[in-house]
Amino acid sequence: SVCGIQWYGFATLGILTAVLSFLMDFSVAKLLQAHLWLYGKLEGHILLQFLCWTLYPACICAFASSFSHNICPFSTGSGVPEVRTMLSGIEVPHYLSLTNMFTKFLGLTCTLAAGSTVFLGKVGPFVHLSTMLGAYLDRLCRLIQGKKKDAGTEMMVVAAAVGVASCFGAPVSGVLFSVEVMSSHFALRHYCPCFFSAACGGLTFHLLSVWSRDGETLQALFKTNFPTATPFFPLEILLFALLGLLCGAGSRFYLFCHRWILKFTKTNRVFLTMLTTEKGLYSGLVVFFLALLTFPHSAGQYLASKCTTKQLLTSLLDSRQWSSQSHNASVRLELDSLEWSSSGAPIFLSLAFFLLMKMWMLVLACTLPLPAGYFMPVFFGSPVKTEILRVRHDLFHGAAAFSGAVTHTLSPALLAVELTGQVTHAVPALLSTLLANALARSRNGLSFYDGLSISK
Amino acid sequence: SVCGIQWYGFATLGILTAVLSFLMDFSVAKLLQAHLWLYGKLEGHILLQFLCWTLYPACICAFASSFSHNICPFSTGSGVPEVRTMLSGIEVPHYLSLTNMFTKFLGLTCTLAAGSTVFLGKVGPFVHLSTMLGAYLDRLCRLIQGKKKDAGTEMMVVAAAVGVASCFGAPVSGVLFSVEVMSSHFALRHYCPCFFSAACGGLTFHLLSVWSRDGETLQALFKTNFPTATPFFPLEILLFALLGLLCGAGSRFYLFCHRWILKFTKTNRVFLTMLTTEKGLYSGLVVFFLALLTFPHSAGQYLASKCTTKQLLTSLLDSRQWSSQSHNASVRLELDSLEWSSSGAPIFLSLAFFLLMKMWMLVLACTLPLPAGYFMPVFFGSPVKTEILRVRHDLFHGAAAFSGAVTHTLSPALLAVELTGQVTHAVPALLSTLLANALARSRNGLSFYDGLSISK
Repeated sequence: SVCGIQWYGFATLGILTAVLSFLMDFSVAKLLQAHLWLYGKLEGHILLQFLCWTLYPACICAFASSFSHNICPFSTGSGVPEVRTMLSGIEVPHYLSLTNMFTKFLGLTCTLAAGSTVFLGKVGPFVHLSTMLGAYLDRLCRLIQGKKKDAGTEMMVVAAAVGVASCFGAPVSGVLFSVEVMSSHFALRHYCPCFFSAACGGLTFHLLSVWSRDGETLQALFKTNFPTATPFFPLEILLFALLGLLCGAGSRFYLFCHRWILKFTKTNRVFLTMLTTEKGLYSGLVVFFLALLTFPHSAGQYLASKCTTKQLLTSLLDSRQWSSQSHNASVRLELDSLEWSSSGAPIFLSLAFFLLMKMWMLVLACTLPLPAGYFMPVFFGSPVKTEILRVRHDLFHGAAAFSGAVTHTLSPALLAVELTGQVTHAVPALLSTLLANALARSRNGLSFYDGLSISK
Repeated sequence: SVCGIQWYGFATLGILTAVLSFLMDFSVAKLLQAHLWLYGKLEGHILLQFLCWTLYPACICAFASSFSHNICPFSTGSGVPEVRTMLSGIEVPHYLSLTNMFTKFLGLTCTLAAGSTVFLGKVGPFVHLSTMLGAYLDRLCRLIQGKKKDAGTEMMVVAAAVGVASCFGAPVSGVLFSVEVMSSHFALRHYCPCFFSAACGGLTFHLLSVWSRDGETLQALFKTNFPTATPFFPLEILLFALLGLLCGAGSRFYLFCHRWILKFTKTNRVFLTMLTTEKGLYSGLVVFFLALLTFPHSAGQYLASKCTTKQLLTSLLDSRQWSSQSHNASVRLELDSLEWSSSGAPIFLSLAFFLLMKMWMLVLACTLPLPAGYFMPVFFGSPVKTEILRVRHDLFHGAAAFSGAVTHTLSPALLAVELTGQVTHAVPALLSTLLANALARSRNGLSFYDGLSISK
């Protein structure tokens, strides 16, 4: 029957995941605020400022690392490879326990609270979190129905969709993600539940953000105001294609680095002993080193390290800044002096430096034994690249190409569209993503998740 | 390999289908223009006008009907049920021949040229057309590769996506449609080809419309300008839900009527003999009867029968008209006097009358032995319903709910989003569609396509 108990389960799954997502966003925002507040209060005492800047994230990450190692060692990493494995039918014990869920939630909050220093994302672990919640609700439903059948994968497929949907309030790309994450076939009977649950999740997430910040209404998460009358000219499609190819090449390089460092940490003796015995210490040291670089009085001034990931993305997508910048340099300085060019260096160099630094820092951060997602930072790479190309700024949607190429999926294109709320750019975004994918997959390139799976 | 010959096949499929779609739109527009021009020239001679109004579509439909009956009797109807059957693995001979394609193309052009009198759509037959083209290209690819393997369903799945994508230039909903049209499982290896081909088709369709009408750029097909800052208020979601339920109830009623008339034509002796022996005559008579009703000097004045389907939809989506109408009745009269209220009757009654008339006329038109789609007219029902409810006009996106409920699919919600270019309404549109679906499916309601399949 259509109105069976499992439909209540799907709705609950969507709503609970969205609540979790909102709670996490809320606490992360508070922790980041506290850090910046403390840093601001110490103005004038450069040593204290330095200690505050470096020790705060280092301590948080060291705590998260040792905590998750001691309570539940399975909670580190992204979780998406494990979800894929489970969906393909192989049982992975301990990965769906409630302990794991609790640990992952706390660990992920800590990782995100380390801010742009560590620069890791939320999507992957959130898909895993949502899967664990789904498995639990599934057991509950079966208990109520009195069935003894062993758990199917239905709830898990739905949960994968809900994870993405309630992370960004983007239901359609959530469903496409769950289609893509399936290894070979997508069963059509999961289709309606996926949409239903994702819509519930997306709606709850939007409503919660409305009610928490009075006055705001249900907008796109990163609203853009590119002109809709002339979204792009036909010949600009070539630029999109170029961007796609560039992102494809970039992603191949990134994946190569990532696989190299994974291999390195598995074979190098010093790293190996540290990673097996002293996880907390290792995390603390790496994050301390990263924080050293992003310290606002050192290289951090070129890295806009005081801003959160969200602020950075918003500033990149703000078409006003960049267009006024090209017309009138003095106006620009007022607008984004705080964020990008505190050193007075040209914005172009600043961005190139930012991209290069972030790339190797991200590769290093991926070795951390923390619950963390690697999707959002990768997603982030593209608008920066777009700005460097100095083509029209609404090429952002090509953004999706880079992350799509790294993970070998197409849903980022749709995610970009849903996040910015402008569907007119769907076709060029798709085109760039497809081209980047083609390049990344040629000669049997492995995807990011494959690389992670192999290394385990 | 990724760059194999089949990828060129996918690209060709997308481009060719888009060209076909554009050609058809172009010739239909010319034929409709010719009809209205002739009607305008006969101003003053009411008898000649009457003959022109009724005989033109009647002759066209009679011709299309007898033509498709004589050349290829399989070309009548929507084609989507047959495509579903073929995708589920059952061989349906003659349905993929080139003769069928040619007949279907010509027949569909004629049907669409009959305009808002017959009020049938384009999507279903276009999916069929694209499938035939796909099957042909598949054979070509195999010939070049020198393989002897029998044809797989890959090209057909891709073709279903391309059909929808190049019909509206909406690639994402095309792919979702092809996921939904599969009977049980969607194979993930078809996912990338689908997106690739649909993107090619959508792009070509957009570019062709840019180059044919100078000055216009790549816009959404039916552009809307609903405010993006406050797309909707949280409590309006309840209205969306109500709209969804209403559409669900309406669709059940519509499906009941549709099944009843299908059964009636199968059992009634007069209808049966006419439908088997004199298809052309039957089509001509029915269309003559319909044209009698839509004649602008009779009931047609309440039906806006001089406008094409596209004009009607554009006028319904124009938020300016309806808001100004509620504030200042005199302003409204200037703007849409031509279209809806040539009789001076209140707009509310006019719309209700429009909806009722169109509903039973559509049920009658569905019995015509013509190549025609039944999706677009159904899609059309919802904005009208929305206007009658007199809630805020940006509720249009609930529009999708009705068509979704009739066909038991969810892709209409996304189609509405892609057609209007405003993604901010995705969540409420999904919600309405889901609710309407739930109502339509309860108590084993059969979908529209199921009804068609059973009647064959």
